[in-house]
Amino acid sequence: MEAIKKVTVLLKKIKESRPVIHHITNYVTMNDSANIVLAVGGSPIMANDMAEVEEVVAISRALVLNIGTPNHDNFRSMLLAGKKANELGIPIVFDPVGAGATTFRKEICSRLLTDIKPAVIKGNISEIMQLAGLNGYFHGIDSYLDIDNGKELVRELAGKLNCIVAATGRRDMVSDGEITFIINNGHEMLSRITGTGCMTSSLIGAFCSVTQDYLTGAAGGIMAMGISGQLAFGSLLPNEGVGTFKARLFDSVCKLSEDTFIKEGEVDVE
Amino acid sequence: MEAIKKVTVLLKKIKESRPVIHHITNYVTMNDSANIVLAVGGSPIMANDMAEVEEVVAISRALVLNIGTPNHDNFRSMLLAGKKANELGIPIVFDPVGAGATTFRKEICSRLLTDIKPAVIKGNISEIMQLAGLNGYFHGIDSYLDIDNGKELVRELAGKLNCIVAATGRRDMVSDGEITFIINNGHEMLSRITGTGCMTSSLIGAFCSVTQDYLTGAAGGIMAMGISGQLAFGSLLPNEGVGTFKARLFDSVCKLSEDTFIKEGEVDVE
Amino acid sequence: MEAIKKVTVLLKKIKESRPVIHHITNYVTMNDSANIVLAVGGSPIMANDMAEVEEVVAISRALVLNIGTPNHDNFRSMLLAGKKANELGIPIVFDPVGAGATTFRKEICSRLLTDIKPAVIKGNISEIMQLAGLNGYFHGIDSYLDIDNGKELVRELAGKLNCIVAATGRRDMVSDGEITFIINNGHEMLSRITGTGCMTSSLIGAFCSVTQDYLTGAAGGIMAMGISGQLAFGSLLPNEGVGTFKARLFDSVCKLSEDTFIKEGEVDVE
Repeated sequence: MEAIKKVTVLLKKIKESRPVIHHITNYVTMNDSANIVLAVGGSPIMANDMAEVEEVVAISRALVLNIGTPNHDNFRSMLLAGKKANELGIPIVFDPVGAGATTFRKEICSRLLTDIKPAVIKGNISEIMQLAGLNGYFHGIDSYLDIDNGKELVRELAGKLNCIVAATGRRDMVSDGEITFIINNGHEMLSRITGTGCMTSSLIGAFCSVTQDYLTGAAGGIMAMGISGQLAFGSLLPNEGVGTFKARLFDSVCKLSEDTFIKEGEVDVE
Repeated sequence: MEAIKKVTVLLKKIKESRPVIHHITNYVTMNDSANIVLAVGGSPIMANDMAEVEEVVAISRALVLNIGTPNHDNFRSMLLAGKKANELGIPIVFDPVGAGATTFRKEICSRLLTDIKPAVIKGNISEIMQLAGLNGYFHGIDSYLDIDNGKELVRELAGKLNCIVAATGRRDMVSDGEITFIINNGHEMLSRITGTGCMTSSLIGAFCSVTQDYLTGAAGGIMAMGISGQLAFGSLLPNEGVGTFKARLFDSVCKLSEDTFIKEGEVDVE
Repeated sequence: MEAIKKVTVLLKKIKESRPVIHHITNYVTMNDSANIVLAVGGSPIMANDMAEVEEVVAISRALVLNIGTPNHDNFRSMLLAGKKANELGIPIVFDPVGAGATTFRKEICSRLLTDIKPAVIKGNISEIMQLAGLNGYFHGIDSYLDIDNGKELVRELAGKLNCIVAATGRRDMVSDGEITFIINNGHEMLSRITGTGCMTSSLIGAFCSVTQDYLTGAAGGIMAMGISGQLAFGSLLPNEGVGTFKARLFDSVCKLSEDTFIKEGEVDVE
């Protein structure tokens, strides 16, 4: 409950300060990420050219790096922006989309984690396993794998990488290497539209932009998406499906409040 | 009616096996294509860099190539991915968006059809006419031209190119060079939002990924879009328009079932 | 009132002639821009590769240049397409998104305004101030700054650049250097979703494509967005928010008519 109250303080801060969240992200879900940042109260900026990413980082409060449609240009921009963000103390959220799916993505992840220190790494369990050096079962971008020993994996990887690790799945797990939050929010329908993972990273960026407690920031972003997914699903009529659900998801994020978090939030701390 | 029953078998297979559908497509409608594949039960992956497209094809069950926003990099990736797909027997759906609009698109189409063998070519009538070496009347991307001799053209081109040719318009025509399906589903409002053509190609990719009968696969993708367009339009209130229609289109695709196809499907076989 | 009647004549012309509107624009809101052009009755084409932009301009009735996600390739395409449009007398709408945010964007704006003559420049007040050589306060892309002397600034810049200048904010101002329209339409919620600025530029492109009176064209595009925003907001139920608002915005644009403009339009001429 204390964790949830801390999250609601961050939500207020976002709405008050409208932090600029810089994204270097994939082409598929850019629009969704921008809209989710606006919905929660932040101010998105999507800029991915080497010619300007360092200046854009410098006017931002968080940097979200997402390798969903990787190429050499974006990768180099991520390195430049990431180094600048580290230099300036701006938190980086790294979303290793499809990590392990191809040699190219493995190389990008390896190089990024060598040269840049993220505040939060957020992925589904198979992506997190990949980063941890295990071979996750891979089935498209939107799949996930539940494993009983997920908690231990997440905690260990957080300790090893010295950052927050957030693994999404049926239950979401967020750890700083010592404390682990187990979050029971979310709805299966979130996996039926593209971009909910990317949007979760954007929300984490927004929550981490107003605190140095990145564990709470990561939990806040994940809960914001999970709770909004539940509320969006709950509002559907029988003949409505994924398209209406997506619109309602944005509706729900923009209506998130202290009350919603306290009423709907389900977190265990271990 | 037999054709429709075959299509419903494919729909079930998609939902059971969640096939990965690889897209190298345009930047405008990527998000829509990913969401439509998810809505019908598949698993989309959008990857367009030369560094990884061959590996991505290898984990996919169909490849969709769409030249809506062509450039040299994407074109080279299409060649690489297409050759690999042919090698592995993975069906390719080719959508020659705006074929004939510019010299660059003509060259791309010519080269792709020389180097790669698609399972299905899907375009509007003017695009198909362009590929057939005729000069189609060109009016933006979303236009189409109805011609009385469309059926003959489609059948001939299918024979000449030795693949399935699907031409969309007021009535959609799908041919393997011998049998031609005339599909009477669809709604005019589908031409009032961008991406419905691209999404149709994505659906064809999903249906072709679970069969080697690409004629039925192409017909299935086209019917899925047409029927969903009818149902989406039918659900609109008087004050609702294209924005709500788009959300309902995704709703309708995710609710497609054997019953919907049998009740709404309208196909003539010639 | 005379201004509004002129705008409604343009709306009819768009619906009758379905003008092709060529965009070289950012990756974030491409899909929205294409859909808004379709909604108002035009025919969008998004093409940004140097290999084809000149040919695409030649089949278009207006060109929209938007630097929301700038890179060297798009910039060169904008120069090529812009010169061709000037040569052919096709109106250019220039949207200097984030002008002044980075050195790169300043250089692009400076070079574009040296080499190309736009028909309309549309930006928020801080972007317009930047182009005018003043330093606007910068806070993300979606921010704006109201200034008392905005009218004078807009009028002066229009005179200096010899084109229409349209500055959006709480009140929108459109000037040709002599006459200035002050438009009181719009709704605060338009700033809560991404792309409404870009879509406004697309609408201006559509209205300017059917007239040589670009002052009325620019006012028409801005009023179309403002009125649609009001109607979209007015249709929301208490539990609906930004996601549903976005769908309703497209609904409202596609239902715009002479009556809506006359009933809802609020313009002062100074």
